[in-house]
Amino acid sequence: MKFHDRPVFPRGFRCASRHVGLKPKGKDLALFVSDVAAAAAAVFTRNQFPGAPVVLGRETIKHGQLCAIAVNSKVSNVATGAQGLENARRMAAAAAAEVGCDARHMLVSSTGVIGVSLPIEKIEQGLRGMAADLQRDPLVGAEGIMTTDTHAKALSMNVGDATITWVAKGSGMIEPNMATMLVYIFTDAAFDSATLDHMLRRAVHVSFNMLSVDSDTSTSDTCAILANGLAGPVPEDAFLEALTAGCIHMTETLARDGEGAKHMLRAIVRGAASDHDARRVAKSLINSPLVKTMVFGADPNVGRLLMAIGKCFDCTIRPEVTDASINGYAVLRAGARVEFDDAAVRSALAREVVDLEVSLGVGTFAATAYGCDLTQGYIDENAAYYSS
Amino acid sequence: MKFHDRPVFPRGFRCASRHVGLKPKGKDLALFVSDVAAAAAAVFTRNQFPGAPVVLGRETIKHGQLCAIAVNSKVSNVATGAQGLENARRMAAAAAAEVGCDARHMLVSSTGVIGVSLPIEKIEQGLRGMAADLQRDPLVGAEGIMTTDTHAKALSMNVGDATITWVAKGSGMIEPNMATMLVYIFTDAAFDSATLDHMLRRAVHVSFNMLSVDSDTSTSDTCAILANGLAGPVPEDAFLEALTAGCIHMTETLARDGEGAKHMLRAIVRGAASDHDARRVAKSLINSPLVKTMVFGADPNVGRLLMAIGKCFDCTIRPEVTDASINGYAVLRAGARVEFDDAAVRSALAREVVDLEVSLGVGTFAATAYGCDLTQGYIDENAAYYSS
Repeated sequence: MKFHDRPVFPRGFRCASRHVGLKPKGKDLALFVSDVAAAAAAVFTRNQFPGAPVVLGRETIKHGQLCAIAVNSKVSNVATGAQGLENARRMAAAAAAEVGCDARHMLVSSTGVIGVSLPIEKIEQGLRGMAADLQRDPLVGAEGIMTTDTHAKALSMNVGDATITWVAKGSGMIEPNMATMLVYIFTDAAFDSATLDHMLRRAVHVSFNMLSVDSDTSTSDTCAILANGLAGPVPEDAFLEALTAGCIHMTETLARDGEGAKHMLRAIVRGAASDHDARRVAKSLINSPLVKTMVFGADPNVGRLLMAIGKCFDCTIRPEVTDASINGYAVLRAGARVEFDDAAVRSALAREVVDLEVSLGVGTFAATAYGCDLTQGYIDENAAYYSS
Repeated sequence: MKFHDRPVFPRGFRCASRHVGLKPKGKDLALFVSDVAAAAAAVFTRNQFPGAPVVLGRETIKHGQLCAIAVNSKVSNVATGAQGLENARRMAAAAAAEVGCDARHMLVSSTGVIGVSLPIEKIEQGLRGMAADLQRDPLVGAEGIMTTDTHAKALSMNVGDATITWVAKGSGMIEPNMATMLVYIFTDAAFDSATLDHMLRRAVHVSFNMLSVDSDTSTSDTCAILANGLAGPVPEDAFLEALTAGCIHMTETLARDGEGAKHMLRAIVRGAASDHDARRVAKSLINSPLVKTMVFGADPNVGRLLMAIGKCFDCTIRPEVTDASINGYAVLRAGARVEFDDAAVRSALAREVVDLEVSLGVGTFAATAYGCDLTQGYIDENAAYYSS
C-alpha cells in the first residue's frame, strides 16, 4: 500500500474553503461535496459536553447518507446552549441550500474556542456562492479547518480501482475516545452504511483511539466516512486494510503536529494479558509527562518507563518478566535497568521518531499508542490560547 | 486547630541529617528516631514496580512497631533487582546498629533516580556516629530527604496534650495512589498500630491521595506514622481530625512546591452522584494539561473546565445542571459559558491559589483535589533530570 505523493480526491468529490471573517485572517470555512449521495458512517466524541454540531451530527448520521460536509474553524459552538444547536441547524440549512441537497444529508462541524457564540450570519453569508469555488484538491478543504495545526493535512491511496482520501485537523486537546479531532474520509468505493460503520470503528480502534497529544479529550471530535460508489465494489478485506493503514498514517501525522511537539512517540506494547492491558500500558507511556519530557530532553532516564508501566494498577504487570527498549536499545530487562551505552541511547532518543517497545511477558496481546513529547511550545501555546 | 509557627517534634523524637557523598553537595541522608519503641502504620505506593525499600517496608510494618526511619536521597533503589533488596536490608541493619534497635523495627526509604545501584558503602559509612548528631528540629531531618523540593517540609500541631509532626518531601512524579512521596508523621499520643492504620488510611484518602503534580505515580511513595505514646491517650476523634487537617495542609504544601509550579490549584467538586465521581472529576480537572496551562497563563479559557469534566466518561454528568466558578466568579451555568467580567476572571486566575469549584447537580457527594499549574519550569527540570 502506497500513499499518493500529493493527495487527490476519489471520483465525484470536490471541496472549497474561504475566509469569512471568523479568524482575523486565514481560511475559516470549508465545504466538502460529493456529486452524488454517498453512504456514510461517523463516530463522535465521548466527552459528556458534546458540541452542538456533534449533537446534530448524531441525528444526521442516522440516515446513513451524506451529500456534503460544512466546517468552520475558530469557534467550536460548544457550551452554547439551545442557541448553539439552532445555529448548527442554520449552518446545515445554509450549506445544503448552497450545494442543492437535503439538510438532513449535510454534516456540520465547528472547531476552535469553547463557549463562544457561533457568528452564524458571517457563516451564512460566507457560504453564498461557495459552490462555484469547488475543486479537486483536498488540501484546499484541509486548509479551511485548521486551528493550531502547523500544516494542512490530507492523504490518499488507491485500493483496487477506488481511491480513499483522508482530510483532518488536530493538534491539541487530543485524546480521542472514539475518534479524534475532525477527520473526514472520502471514497468512491461502493459500500452500504452499515459496512462502512463497522469498518470505520475497527480502523479507529487501532488508530485515532490510540492517539494522545495531551490526554485531554475534545468536545468536538468527529470522524466521518463518505462512500459515493462511483468506482463500484471493492473487496472488503482490501478496503479495510487500506482504511486502517491510512488512519494510522493520519494518526502519526497528527501526533507529529501535536502542539509544540519536536518528536513523535510510539509506545509498542506486546505480551500483554489482554487487549485492555496492552492499550492501557501503551497509553500510560505516551501520556506520562515525565516520559514526554525525557524524550524532549533526550535524557536517558529510563526509570520513567517502568514508572509509567507500573502505575497501571488494574493491569497484569510482573516486573520479573518486563523488558523495554528505546529505538532498539534494550534499557530494561526483567524489571531492572540494564547497563547500556549512554551516548547511544541519548542519540536514539534524539531521533524524530522515538519507539518505546515494551514486552510485558504475560500474554499474547499487543497495542501501539501514538503521541509526542512535551515542550515549552505546548505551554506557550496554551497559556494564552483564548487570549490570542 | 493551629499549626506551630515553627515545627517541633513530639516528646521522644529526634533526627539528624548528613552529606555522605550521594549528591555532589547538600544533605543526602536522614535519620528519625523515637527514644522508645513506637506503634506504627504505613501505606506504600501502588505502582507495580515498587522500589526495594517499599518491598522491605511492607515486611517491616507488619510488626506494627518502629523505632526509627533512615532515608537517603539522590538514588531511589528502584529497578535494582535482588541486589537492591539486599542493599535495603544492609541499610536497615546499619541504621539499626547505629541507634541500637532491632533491624525489624527500622523503616528505610530511598528517593531519587530510578535504576541506579544504591551506594551502600557510602551509606553504611555515613551512618556511623550519626546517633550523636540527633536533635529536636524536624526541619533538620526534612533537609536530608529533599530531591527537587525547593524547601524542607515539616509541620506540627498540638492535639490535647500530644503533638503531631509531619515531615515530607515531594515535588514531581506525584500522583500518589494510597500515599505519596515520602511523608513521616510522628506523635507522642498513645494508639495501637491497628487504630493508627485505620486513621492513617482515612486521612490519606482525602489528602495525599487527592494530590497530583503530574499524574505520574512514583515507585517509592511511602507514608508512615509513628506513635510513641509518651503523651498518653488522646481522644480518637480529635486526633483523627488533627491528623487529617495536617495531612491536607502538607498536601497543599507539596502542591505549591510542584516542579515548576507558580500556582496551587484546588478542584472542589460538589453534587456528585458518588464518592468515585466526585474524586474522578476533581482529579480530571487538576490533571488536565489544558486547565493547568490556562491557569499558568491566567487565560480565562473556561471551556477547558467543561472539557475536563466531560471527559470523565464513567461519571454521571448532566450538562444542563453543571455549574462552575473560578475563585468565586461564576463562569459556567447549566453547562454553558456565562458572560463574565473578563478582567476580573483574569485577575482571579492570577492569584497564587486558584479554586475551581464545580457543582455537578446530580447528587450529594463532594471531593477536593490538589495540584498546580504546568509551566516551562516543569519541562526544564524534567528534560534533564537524569543528566543533571
